[in-house]
Amino acid sequence: MKTKPKTVRISIIGFGNVGGGVAEVIRRKRAEIARKHGMDIKIVGIADLRGVIVNENGLSEDAIMKLKRGGKPEDMTTLEVIKEIEHEVMVEATPTNVETGEPGLTHIITALESDKHVVTSNKGPLALEYRRLMELAAKRDKEIRFEASVGGAMPIISLIRENLAGNGIISIKGILNGTCNYILTRMAEEELPYEHVLKEAQEIGIAETDPSKDVEGIDTAVKLVILANSVFGMNATYEDVEVTGITEITPDALKLANDAGYMIKLIGEVDREGCLKVAPRLVPKEDPLNVGGTLNVATIKTDLAGDITVIGKGAGPIEAASAILSDIIRIYS
Amino acid sequence: MKTKPKTVRISIIGFGNVGGGVAEVIRRKRAEIARKHGMDIKIVGIADLRGVIVNENGLSEDAIMKLKRGGKPEDMTTLEVIKEIEHEVMVEATPTNVETGEPGLTHIITALESDKHVVTSNKGPLALEYRRLMELAAKRDKEIRFEASVGGAMPIISLIRENLAGNGIISIKGILNGTCNYILTRMAEEELPYEHVLKEAQEIGIAETDPSKDVEGIDTAVKLVILANSVFGMNATYEDVEVTGITEITPDALKLANDAGYMIKLIGEVDREGCLKVAPRLVPKEDPLNVGGTLNVATIKTDLAGDITVIGKGAGPIEAASAILSDIIRIYS
Repeated sequence: MKTKPKTVRISIIGFGNVGGGVAEVIRRKRAEIARKHGMDIKIVGIADLRGVIVNENGLSEDAIMKLKRGGKPEDMTTLEVIKEIEHEVMVEATPTNVETGEPGLTHIITALESDKHVVTSNKGPLALEYRRLMELAAKRDKEIRFEASVGGAMPIISLIRENLAGNGIISIKGILNGTCNYILTRMAEEELPYEHVLKEAQEIGIAETDPSKDVEGIDTAVKLVILANSVFGMNATYEDVEVTGITEITPDALKLANDAGYMIKLIGEVDREGCLKVAPRLVPKEDPLNVGGTLNVATIKTDLAGDITVIGKGAGPIEAASAILSDIIRIYS
Repeated sequence: MKTKPKTVRISIIGFGNVGGGVAEVIRRKRAEIARKHGMDIKIVGIADLRGVIVNENGLSEDAIMKLKRGGKPEDMTTLEVIKEIEHEVMVEATPTNVETGEPGLTHIITALESDKHVVTSNKGPLALEYRRLMELAAKRDKEIRFEASVGGAMPIISLIRENLAGNGIISIKGILNGTCNYILTRMAEEELPYEHVLKEAQEIGIAETDPSKDVEGIDTAVKLVILANSVFGMNATYEDVEVTGITEITPDALKLANDAGYMIKLIGEVDREGCLKVAPRLVPKEDPLNVGGTLNVATIKTDLAGDITVIGKGAGPIEAASAILSDIIRIYS
C-alpha cells in the first residue's frame, strides 16, 4: 500500500439528503479509503437546484458549505458539469420521479454518453428504463451501480448478483419500505388506529406530509421492479405490479393475527415466473421476515444456498451514502 | 454473450461431502454458468484418500462416479495433481484440523506456489496461518477465497469486505454453529435436557458422534478467528478466544430466560478492539439474532450502514458448494 492511491473524481448531482450524505461520508472516510482501497476520492462537481460548483482539483469543504448556504454558484448547467468536467463517476441523487424518471434519467444518459460510470440511489430511471440504461452502459463499457436504490444500506442487489453468483434465484420476498413497517409495528404494539400512528410517524419525520407513495405500496412496487429487472432479467415496469397498500389495515386485524402467532407486514414479492406483487401479508412471528420498526428485510430463495435473509436500515442519508460509497469503491476493485 | 466462454479448470482436493457437493453443483449448473457468467468450469483433477483421478480435458461423470465407488485411480499423489496438472483454481475441501491445519495447509501452499488460485471451505489453515497464506497469495498474485469456511451458504466475509466496503466495521456478533443452535432451540421448545436433545441431534445427523468441537464452542471460535483476521486484519489464533460451550445449559435456565423475553444462544463475538469471545448469551426474542433450528446468523455493526444482519444455512454439502462455486465465479468477474 505504499503506491500512490488512484484518484477517482466524482460529481454529485442532486445535493439533498442523500447527495449531502455522500459528501459527508467522503469527508469522514477519505483517509481510510485511501489506506484500505488505494483510492483517493475527490468531489470535482456538485449540482442541484441552487446551482453548480466545480473544481477540477477537488472541491474544498468551504466551497461545499457555501453551496449549502446558497452562496454564489458557477455559471454552468448541470448537464455541462456531467459532460464537460473531467471525472470518472457521476453520483445521481436527485429525488425519484416514477412517472417520467426525470431529471435523473437525462443525467444518467448524459453521464454514460460522456463516458462516466454511474452510481445512483434514484429509483425512477431504473424502474422506467432499466434495459435501455444497461444497454447504453454496456455499449459504453461503463458501469451503472444502484445498490442504494433498494433497501438503503441493506445489501441486496450486489449480494444476489455477486455473493450468490453460483445460485439460481427462485424468489425475493421482503419488507422494502421502512415507513410502512414502522406504522404496522406501532399499530400492533400499541393497538392504535392507522390514522393515529401515521400522524405520529409524520411528526417524527418517518412519514412524509403526503405519505401516499409509501403507504399505498408504490415505493415498494418500484423497488420490486428494480429487483425484477436486475436479478431476474425481466423488462418489467410499475404497471406489471399488483399493488395493495396498508391504509385499510385495522388494529383488530393486527390483533387477530397476533393471537394466531402472526404479524401483518407489507410484503413485496417477485419470483422467476414473473409474478410481482405488493400486499399486506401474514408473517409468522418466528419467521426471519418478521422485523420491527423501520427496518427493511428480504429473504432470497435460491436453488443451492437455500433461503438467505438480510436485514438492515432501509433509509437515512448516511445509510444510503454508505451504499453509494461502497458502489464507487467496487467499480475499482 | 456470443463469445466462447472462458474455460476455468479446477481441481477438487478432498472429495467428501463438500468436495462431492462441488462436483454435483458444477454438473447441475455448467450450462447456466456458461450463459450467465461466460465461464466453462471443468474439473480436471480430483484427489482424496481413495486416490486420484485426472483428465486435462475435464473428467467425465463416469470417471467421477467410479472414484466414488472406489474404482482404480491414477498413479499420482495429491500434491502432484496440484502442481503438475494444468489448472486455474484448486478447491480445498479436506476436513478441518485445528491443531495442525493439515493436510489442507500443505495443499493450499502448494497450490499458491504453483500459481493456482485457491477456494476453500477448510477452516484449519485459515485459523492457524492466515497471514502467511495471504502474504503468499499476494506475492504470487493469486486469490484465496474462503466464503464457505464461515457460515456455509450464508454470505459474510465477502459481504463485509466487498458489499460494505465503504464502512468501518465495529463488531460482528452471531450464531455460527448450527448444531448448537439446533440443540438450544429444541431444549427451549420442548423443555428437554441437554443430553436428550444431543442424542436426538446425533440420531438425525445434525450432531457428530463426538460432538465436542460443536458443543464446546471450538467450531464457533475457529470461525471467529477467521473473521478477526480477514475482516479486522488481526493476527489472531484459537488461543486468543475466550470460549464457553453449551454443555452446562439447563432447561430451567432456558425457561427462566424465556419467561423474561429472552432466548439463550451460543454467540460468537469479535470487535475491532480485539475482543474475541464465544459464550451462551441472552438474546431478546425480537432481536434479529434470534433465529431457530440449525440456522446461522450474524449482525455486523458498521459505522455508516448501521447494523446489517444476515441469516442462512450454516451447513450442508450443497450449501457449502454453492459458496465455493460463487467464489470461483468471482475470481473471474
